[in-house]
Amino acid sequence: MSALEALKKDLDGLQIEDNPQIVKQKSRDFFWYSPVLKGQLDHVTGDLVVTPKSEAELIQVLKACYAHDIPVTTRGTGTGNYGQAMPLAGGVVLSMTAMDRVKEIRPGVVVAEAGAIVSKIDEATRAHSGQELRLHPSTARTATIGGFIAGGSGGVGSINWGGLRDLGNVIRLRVLTMEAEPKVLEMTGEDLHKVMHAYGTNGIITEVEMPLTAAYDWVDVLVGFDDFMDAAVFGDALGNQDGLLVKEIAPIAAPLPHDYFLRHQKFIRKDQSVVVCMVAPFAMDAFAAFTRRFKAAEMLYRSDMASEADLKSLPPAYELAWNHTTLRGLRVDPSITYLQVLYPFPTQIEGVRRMTELLGDEVPGHLEFVRFDGKITCFGLPIVRYTTEERLNEIIRLHEDNGCPIFNPHRYTLEEGGMKQTDAVQLAFKREADPKGLLNPGKMIAWENPDFDFSSNKLFLFPGLHRD
Amino acid sequence: MSALEALKKDLDGLQIEDNPQIVKQKSRDFFWYSPVLKGQLDHVTGDLVVTPKSEAELIQVLKACYAHDIPVTTRGTGTGNYGQAMPLAGGVVLSMTAMDRVKEIRPGVVVAEAGAIVSKIDEATRAHSGQELRLHPSTARTATIGGFIAGGSGGVGSINWGGLRDLGNVIRLRVLTMEAEPKVLEMTGEDLHKVMHAYGTNGIITEVEMPLTAAYDWVDVLVGFDDFMDAAVFGDALGNQDGLLVKEIAPIAAPLPHDYFLRHQKFIRKDQSVVVCMVAPFAMDAFAAFTRRFKAAEMLYRSDMASEADLKSLPPAYELAWNHTTLRGLRVDPSITYLQVLYPFPTQIEGVRRMTELLGDEVPGHLEFVRFDGKITCFGLPIVRYTTEERLNEIIRLHEDNGCPIFNPHRYTLEEGGMKQTDAVQLAFKREADPKGLLNPGKMIAWENPDFDFSSNKLFLFPGLHRD
Repeated sequence: MSALEALKKDLDGLQIEDNPQIVKQKSRDFFWYSPVLKGQLDHVTGDLVVTPKSEAELIQVLKACYAHDIPVTTRGTGTGNYGQAMPLAGGVVLSMTAMDRVKEIRPGVVVAEAGAIVSKIDEATRAHSGQELRLHPSTARTATIGGFIAGGSGGVGSINWGGLRDLGNVIRLRVLTMEAEPKVLEMTGEDLHKVMHAYGTNGIITEVEMPLTAAYDWVDVLVGFDDFMDAAVFGDALGNQDGLLVKEIAPIAAPLPHDYFLRHQKFIRKDQSVVVCMVAPFAMDAFAAFTRRFKAAEMLYRSDMASEADLKSLPPAYELAWNHTTLRGLRVDPSITYLQVLYPFPTQIEGVRRMTELLGDEVPGHLEFVRFDGKITCFGLPIVRYTTEERLNEIIRLHEDNGCPIFNPHRYTLEEGGMKQTDAVQLAFKREADPKGLLNPGKMIAWENPDFDFSSNKLFLFPGLHRD
Repeated sequence: MSALEALKKDLDGLQIEDNPQIVKQKSRDFFWYSPVLKGQLDHVTGDLVVTPKSEAELIQVLKACYAHDIPVTTRGTGTGNYGQAMPLAGGVVLSMTAMDRVKEIRPGVVVAEAGAIVSKIDEATRAHSGQELRLHPSTARTATIGGFIAGGSGGVGSINWGGLRDLGNVIRLRVLTMEAEPKVLEMTGEDLHKVMHAYGTNGIITEVEMPLTAAYDWVDVLVGFDDFMDAAVFGDALGNQDGLLVKEIAPIAAPLPHDYFLRHQKFIRKDQSVVVCMVAPFAMDAFAAFTRRFKAAEMLYRSDMASEADLKSLPPAYELAWNHTTLRGLRVDPSITYLQVLYPFPTQIEGVRRMTELLGDEVPGHLEFVRFDGKITCFGLPIVRYTTEERLNEIIRLHEDNGCPIFNPHRYTLEEGGMKQTDAVQLAFKREADPKGLLNPGKMIAWENPDFDFSSNKLFLFPGLHRD
């Protein structure tokens, strides 16, 4: 009997899927945003999908996999796009989607199982007491909260609250270790960094306790500019308005808004750059006054004055922003890809200007203003009109040479897609919590190859991905 | 019949007070914080106090005063300390305290009459829907919301929302003009600046619409340091923590906390500087983790772990901060006074260090961290161990020479206590709304003496204050 057959026997009675086509489908995320990852990961698949309904069932899965030395790659709904949740070494794809209960809501706090869909949490907290999560990805309507914490970094709301990494944006995580007898750990404070944004390589998040903030009927607003740099300056100034409550500020360069936002196209000229905003309803007078200070600004659309028909047919503004901009672009033009850039404060506007002048319509700008270490600055998620991997790497180098660090979305490892160095805390915790190295193998270079030289400019290729 | 007697006749049936002792008492604010203002304003009194119960009664008062050319100085409860609401030319002291209804509460918004007490608004909005005002003065339990807007600039909560002047921190003001037929104006957006922080010199605010935010049971925390500069650095770093929700950060130099905070004294050594904080209850784990990053920090007190007896006897943390620090100091040592300083970003810490080194215990530090034009920086409300007016002016000059502008709390005019220049918008609106110049005479230099030279270093003295 193979290990896999033995495992299936051990998991008798649990929800298991082994139809190869379905397993392959559930082994994928949005890695295909990247032509580089597409080439590397397209063939990746697990051996079976297990979907536990409770922590007890989950512990049963882990114990069995540990006993049979079978890798476990945890996933929510696979909305990541770094290949975070793709099982490079096969084995079990652990779907958390059936552990989706919202367990407790109180002032400022929600407790939910890791597989709860982000927008479902917001629905529950809004109905309960007019509250909502501080931060959500543009994929809120499909992503799980556990996946967001394990594989994401911020998103809508980051203009007010910074990123997930910031102390206070996650209150508590309940985590299982991958041992003969899995431990249940409750992590708070500094400990949270052990497992956050670790792609599930060193523990399984089963429950989250997250801070809430006041929920409002956010007004979606599109503001048009003839010049992308005017849009960038507007976004920066808006972010620095301390009393003007917004949840999202995303300047996007022409012709992307017209070309990609098909259902909003009628509001946007092809040569118009657009700032996508979400504004508190009671701040609209102040927002209008602020916008009038910019001669070049034109309010193209505001949902609080939209027709019933428009309100029904238009997607929410946050589904024009963050990686939904890229997604909408890929639907129109599958040949594009994108990058993730940080324009560091206080030279963010100069950085944007320099890269815009340097790269023009080969890399049309898309900015996301955020609070970052207490200051307002912006990330870039520019579209790249992709030609070759060589040129892509050149574009990356051009950004870095101009003081704009890249978080490379064309790499599937923690280190290469992030800070290009080992996270010692995460590595140390993996030694404790996953001694056999069975959790999401291949994603933490420091584990796989402690001698890997990050400065070599060599690509890390997980041995499991070598194909004959 | 004198004009005053004619007025009284016109106002028959309204609540009027003309007992000279009571009128004098209701003509005063906290001007005596300043030994300079104390000398200038101690004799000031109105002729009678009128307390309208409705806008209709208020209009009756204004029409009658206009007809008889009698000055009207509007006041809430007189918690200002620049002499804002003191009737330099006598006449009617218009008390707004009977117009104190909370009229409407909805998500993110409260509508109240101008005379409503700030903490009473918070009580109503908390009970209604777990909301509270974004900003309040340390005098929240006595101050009116209209007085705060007409005479204040920010306070508790400014670490999150900036100041009242920032777009969005006031939604709408209903304002009466001082004309033969008073007009009722509804102001929003840019128009708000016409009457905000104008000391009631160009209109009477009768109703306010203010933004609300989520209310929490804020945890009062005192963190101790052996070195004031460590306390300042801690406060600055805390303010820059994007995910850690606090409402107040005030580093105060030893020996002030021990000497002035009598009911907290048992927690504080005499040589300890203290950072007074208000922290969201669900952020306390993160706050503790953050504090542990500072070797020099010692958590002296946290209200979420305090005894019942302490909770009953201790004043709230916000009554240790802002001008309550000064007030508590004056109770212990009536010879002190204070200043208001801005330490501009990004050199706020260097500015504090320089002034601390320069002035030592003659001017013990008190900082209030705030968001200011999108960045975290601090105001100073340092205590001054007062000797002479000459030395006070020297201390002011030393600050200004070191790049730390002073908002002089020893001046009763709008211009001298503020930006040292005429606010053209406020002046223009006064020409429209108060053609006879009857509203709070003597406070707007630009009106009284358009040729006054602000660069002359000469003090403006309202003619009405000249005494033989």
